[in-house]
Amino acid sequence: MSEAECIFCLVIARKVDASIVYQDDRVTAFMDIQPLTEGHLLVVPNQHSPDLEGVSAETAGWMAEIGRKLGLAMLESDLGCKAFNLFLANGEEAGQTVFHSHLHVIPRYPNDGFGVRFPPGFGRKVSREELDRQAESIRVCLQV
Amino acid sequence: MSEAECIFCLVIARKVDASIVYQDDRVTAFMDIQPLTEGHLLVVPNQHSPDLEGVSAETAGWMAEIGRKLGLAMLESDLGCKAFNLFLANGEEAGQTVFHSHLHVIPRYPNDGFGVRFPPGFGRKVSREELDRQAESIRVCLQV
Repeated sequence: MSEAECIFCLVIARKVDASIVYQDDRVTAFMDIQPLTEGHLLVVPNQHSPDLEGVSAETAGWMAEIGRKLGLAMLESDLGCKAFNLFLANGEEAGQTVFHSHLHVIPRYPNDGFGVRFPPGFGRKVSREELDRQAESIRVCLQV
Repeated sequence: MSEAECIFCLVIARKVDASIVYQDDRVTAFMDIQPLTEGHLLVVPNQHSPDLEGVSAETAGWMAEIGRKLGLAMLESDLGCKAFNLFLANGEEAGQTVFHSHLHVIPRYPNDGFGVRFPPGFGRKVSREELDRQAESIRVCLQV
């Protein structure tokens, strides 16, 4: 999808109706129109990128800083939530459906029905040797 | 739970066995011993805080920057994952179970069984008026 057709780019440019909570020169935060819970919002980089690879490290960090502040604001607000989740899906296999990278900030309420679906086999013991092998395979590809 | 009893503080101090992928003066990343998927790891602030309120904005941003880099490293690694999720639970009602704030980086594979559980009623249309009201209630509590 090109930038011109991207719904989040249209929100950022204020060319479509949206309930914007926060905007600066790097990120925009607005209410999700299909909320997982009441008050669910998204933080997006203003510069289009389908995924985090195209979002600078600094902007990704800023998305999280703003996401944290929005979550803390939710807890203080009259929404009445007790907690919040930050969630980001990077890639189709991770559940990403809109290909302009976005961080979900999801207020949580007792028994709200939202949550994580655990995979079959969750809880099985993984050996230290295997964990060390996985850690090493990630570490060799890490660019910090 | 006091800092002295916190399992993540013991990992950071290298007083218990762990598969550490990355550590600097602000954050530590290590393999989750109860992985949701193969390669699942956690990024934690070195300074103990049960939740994000006690983590500085800068450190929260750095957790995300490192989380992004670890996710991108996973995609390059021999794990064979196709995507990844970033996930943070802030508060018990959000599913938090270890009370040292932590960011999950979860590699994703086709049909891995992990995912989000949608709440009953998901997909219902919320009016713009209602979204605007929620946006305003969050905005007035936002401290940026």
